[in-house]
Amino acid sequence: MTRLTLALDAMGGDFGPCVTVPASLQALASNLQLHLLLVGDPDIISPLLAKADPSVLERLQVVPAESVIAGDAKPSQAIRASRGTSMRIALELIKSGEAQACVSAGNTGALMGLAKLLIKPLDGIERPALMTVIPNQQRGKTVVLDLGANVECDSTMLVQFAVMGAVMAEEVLGIAQPRVALLNIGEEETKGLDNIREASAVLKKTQAINYIGYLEGNDLLTGKTDVMVCDGFVGNVTLKTMEGVIRLFLSLLKSSSEGGKQAWWLKLLGRWLQKRVARRFGHLNPDQYNGACLLGLRGTVIKSHGAANQNAFAVAIEQAVQAVQRQVPDRIAARLEAVLPKSD
Amino acid sequence: MTRLTLALDAMGGDFGPCVTVPASLQALASNLQLHLLLVGDPDIISPLLAKADPSVLERLQVVPAESVIAGDAKPSQAIRASRGTSMRIALELIKSGEAQACVSAGNTGALMGLAKLLIKPLDGIERPALMTVIPNQQRGKTVVLDLGANVECDSTMLVQFAVMGAVMAEEVLGIAQPRVALLNIGEEETKGLDNIREASAVLKKTQAINYIGYLEGNDLLTGKTDVMVCDGFVGNVTLKTMEGVIRLFLSLLKSSSEGGKQAWWLKLLGRWLQKRVARRFGHLNPDQYNGACLLGLRGTVIKSHGAANQNAFAVAIEQAVQAVQRQVPDRIAARLEAVLPKSD
Repeated sequence: MTRLTLALDAMGGDFGPCVTVPASLQALASNLQLHLLLVGDPDIISPLLAKADPSVLERLQVVPAESVIAGDAKPSQAIRASRGTSMRIALELIKSGEAQACVSAGNTGALMGLAKLLIKPLDGIERPALMTVIPNQQRGKTVVLDLGANVECDSTMLVQFAVMGAVMAEEVLGIAQPRVALLNIGEEETKGLDNIREASAVLKKTQAINYIGYLEGNDLLTGKTDVMVCDGFVGNVTLKTMEGVIRLFLSLLKSSSEGGKQAWWLKLLGRWLQKRVARRFGHLNPDQYNGACLLGLRGTVIKSHGAANQNAFAVAIEQAVQAVQRQVPDRIAARLEAVLPKSD
Repeated sequence: MTRLTLALDAMGGDFGPCVTVPASLQALASNLQLHLLLVGDPDIISPLLAKADPSVLERLQVVPAESVIAGDAKPSQAIRASRGTSMRIALELIKSGEAQACVSAGNTGALMGLAKLLIKPLDGIERPALMTVIPNQQRGKTVVLDLGANVECDSTMLVQFAVMGAVMAEEVLGIAQPRVALLNIGEEETKGLDNIREASAVLKKTQAINYIGYLEGNDLLTGKTDVMVCDGFVGNVTLKTMEGVIRLFLSLLKSSSEGGKQAWWLKLLGRWLQKRVARRFGHLNPDQYNGACLLGLRGTVIKSHGAANQNAFAVAIEQAVQAVQRQVPDRIAARLEAVLPKSD
């Protein structure tokens, strides 16, 4: 097994090192091949490492960074002033070959822009896209992109997203001839925006893609498609809506066995049954699939939810590990050559 | 109590008269003031009325229509060829004063276009919007628009939607100074599309609106706002996603007490507890709030889900009843005059 080193933007996200440091220790403890480079302010990070196990600490190194890109900074300005920030240094560690992937919970726009600048897109890709894999009703998985890297998308970008999503589904999830759909407001030909209709026309002619047409929002979880493609604005709002509803249900489920004037044995039995139901819903819990992958780059960059807790950030680290082990960028590059029209 | 007459497009929707006729009988039985004009093919409708109670039938009249607009028809073509269709005749019954509102589960684009043509928008409104009221986590209600009437929206339209939504929340739901938010991919000023940022700038200066800024998809159910405004593409995808997740949860909940090798008494107790949990989720069931109102017209037009079942279509009829009784169009017109800039 080769050495596996990831660079983490330890300062990014709503909670910064208070989440990223414990999550790092958790990831190191559960994966003995893993090495982590924690990029950030040593004065804040070090005290959080004080009680860690020495066997874990020897696979962790703090890389100092002077500053941090604010979550609400305007990406273009943040990128111009990015020298010395934890996010930029973490990405530079991929560029220099010291790390094989990077994880950040920081400003999405800045991460997207800096990654494009430093890691560079693959040949044939105009703009990378944020992709995640969500569990579906059929106990299978659905690849969804773009989740917010590109607020506006033309038809060419949507087609490129479809190709990248299909490669991801086939090479990483192991789905043969993955079905690819465009997210729209109806399944009929005439529905939707111009860019979606144009992308649909191109995908129909692209033999290497198993394009199945339009699907609607309610099909995100039904497993009718293996890949769902949309622009970054719609993808972001949709996924956040889905997560909001799921969290609401899980909290209602948890609270429904509390309170009330029941006998103690009925309460106990009730809790046991709630747990049984919650287990069935558990695979839909957003914390279980945190970490969106910036697809279309020459390296692996994972964006964690800004509000991720320790467990969720550890899941994002695990996503980076898997993307590196499965050589996602190389596989996409190889397939893009075969699928996308030659530019000569 | 004044007489209340609604015109129903009995042929629209995925199931046509098989849903609309039983739903009509259900609505008539539960509201003795209600009169219904069922527009459609008498040869199909009449047999479905054969076993109905005579006291209900005397408040129901079948208005013949030769044809129906297909659900997948291109709206512009459908509107040109709409003479004699059940949808158009139902709308004409409002225009002629024979009905006070219309309900259809048919082609959304055609309904929007025909309603605009026949019923006319209110002064100051460029394009009507589809609005619905969804229940939120705080046991309150949130007005959401546009849900698909306008696939692309400029900032002026978003501002008009905000005004109509605020009037709806204040005058119909009885919320004083309702909070109004724009749906976006982040809460920071710099986020989102140009039309949203422009609408935000205008709303900040509009004193008559209690504008609270941007909210994200996960806030649709949290009750952080009373009115959520977005374009029709995003609104449609978002609401359908939300409904898909809720339906999935309700079905998982229902099935989780079935099967398995439990003692009979454990199964019984299990079902009792599931029911208790389902009751807590029940107010989020999409069937309970079917019926989107086309706001901004000089009359009341309600769009039902195409896939609505009998109960859901009956809920849409009830929405129309309430909109008529609460004089929604008049109240919006009155408030628009005060809020929107004078055109002189």
